[in-house]
Amino acid sequence: MYTSEHQVRVRYAETDQMNVVYHGNYAQYFEVGRVEAIRQLGLSYKDLETSGIIMPVIEWTAKFLRPAHYDDLLTVRTTLKEMPVNHRIEFIQEVFNEKGKLLTSGKVLLYFLRSPSMEKTDMPPEMAQRLQPYFS
Amino acid sequence: MYTSEHQVRVRYAETDQMNVVYHGNYAQYFEVGRVEAIRQLGLSYKDLETSGIIMPVIEWTAKFLRPAHYDDLLTVRTTLKEMPVNHRIEFIQEVFNEKGKLLTSGKVLLYFLRSPSMEKTDMPPEMAQRLQPYFS
Amino acid sequence: MYTSEHQVRVRYAETDQMNVVYHGNYAQYFEVGRVEAIRQLGLSYKDLETSGIIMPVIEWTAKFLRPAHYDDLLTVRTTLKEMPVNHRIEFIQEVFNEKGKLLTSGKVLLYFLRSPSMEKTDMPPEMAQRLQPYFS
Amino acid sequence: MYTSEHQVRVRYAETDQMNVVYHGNYAQYFEVGRVEAIRQLGLSYKDLETSGIIMPVIEWTAKFLRPAHYDDLLTVRTTLKEMPVNHRIEFIQEVFNEKGKLLTSGKVLLYFLRSPSMEKTDMPPEMAQRLQPYFS
Repeated sequence: MYTSEHQVRVRYAETDQMNVVYHGNYAQYFEVGRVEAIRQLGLSYKDLETSGIIMPVIEWTAKFLRPAHYDDLLTVRTTLKEMPVNHRIEFIQEVFNEKGKLLTSGKVLLYFLRSPSMEKTDMPPEMAQRLQPYFS
Repeated sequence: MYTSEHQVRVRYAETDQMNVVYHGNYAQYFEVGRVEAIRQLGLSYKDLETSGIIMPVIEWTAKFLRPAHYDDLLTVRTTLKEMPVNHRIEFIQEVFNEKGKLLTSGKVLLYFLRSPSMEKTDMPPEMAQRLQPYFS
Repeated sequence: MYTSEHQVRVRYAETDQMNVVYHGNYAQYFEVGRVEAIRQLGLSYKDLETSGIIMPVIEWTAKFLRPAHYDDLLTVRTTLKEMPVNHRIEFIQEVFNEKGKLLTSGKVLLYFLRSPSMEKTDMPPEMAQRLQPYFS
Repeated sequence: MYTSEHQVRVRYAETDQMNVVYHGNYAQYFEVGRVEAIRQLGLSYKDLETSGIIMPVIEWTAKFLRPAHYDDLLTVRTTLKEMPVNHRIEFIQEVFNEKGKLLTSGKVLLYFLRSPSMEKTDMPPEMAQRLQPYFS
């Protein structure tokens, strides 16, 4: 299992008139969580893209248990429960508030695609090498 | 079954550097679809809120099958497959491009809550009355 | 003078916890206004980009006089006061509510650039031809 | 003069298909800069709102000199050049990339309003006290 945590501060723009974070904005918190999870592995999603691999989101699920509020300092926990195989990678994503309460939990499936052909491809070897120690 | 369709034009702001609509922005397309589905019933979600009923999103699922592009005129189809019971209402939501290709399909669960107490409540009677003919 | 109007409905996602449209979202309303102003000329900004001309925003000014609220049907009025010369084009943009009250007024300066070299270029002749009748 | 700096990392969602940060998203970077400038004074904009003072944006200007790109670690510099008087407060805001290049510069005028009456009010005394040392 590979787990990473990253903090994001709720912006005013991200609230809506229910005085909570608009549900669609969790997609960005999850994105930030995944990108930092990859960075904490010693890689960079930006460099992956430059090298010709893109990772579009294929499926997205979230349960909204408790609201997040303006200026909350959230912790986004991003977890790989299994070593990714072939072109699929699935992240478990959870958002906690400062009291450690789980606000939102979700699951995001992405594919590794070769750009610009958009053909499915395997996880890049440098990522596999960095992840391997967490799954053995 | 109750079904409604509404069109949205993809904004430049909604694209990302993959040259497609950022996946998180479908939350907004789905929202617009639900609001217009309610309006086509002869009601207004805004009026519901003014009357003290709010409908937060509790679960959100989406599959991204094909990308949407800048300036595409999308059709958001919003469907209630079953008459909502008690405090739950589940919308099926699909986004099609101008060629009728299904781009994204999702499911959104919302609760009816009484504001400001945030207690679960039943679907408002005026909504039940308008929906009833579609399910008998 | 060339003027064009287009309507946008305020989305829930666009409000913030002040119960009004977040000021930064007017950039999107202005964008939609400009794109539709170009479409009403018989052109398409998307096609311009495909043909190798991009129009990045260089300056952006807005005064927020009155707030816009959720579900408001806004009218975005987009005006060229002068025939654009060389690589510059400046739009006056105003947002009105359903009662005709001016909510926001702004000015947006864009450049015509050749893509991918990013060199400044003149307004494309097909746009100049369509605009000419409004300025003579 | 009071100056504060804060870093923000560009999110994928914030890019557009020109491969740069969408110009409207700088409103959020500026917002984050102002909020952190207030926090570095030892105050919190959230607490201000709770105490009945809101600060809506009244005017917004920005010049976009150079683009910001995905994953850039930007520095937002927020400056008060003059001690605010009465109900007005004007921030100078600049965004720099990691090489120290100025990407965007802007000016944001906000008012202090009493909520919920929306009447103009003076800068709260606790803010005035914290700012005073920087202007004498």
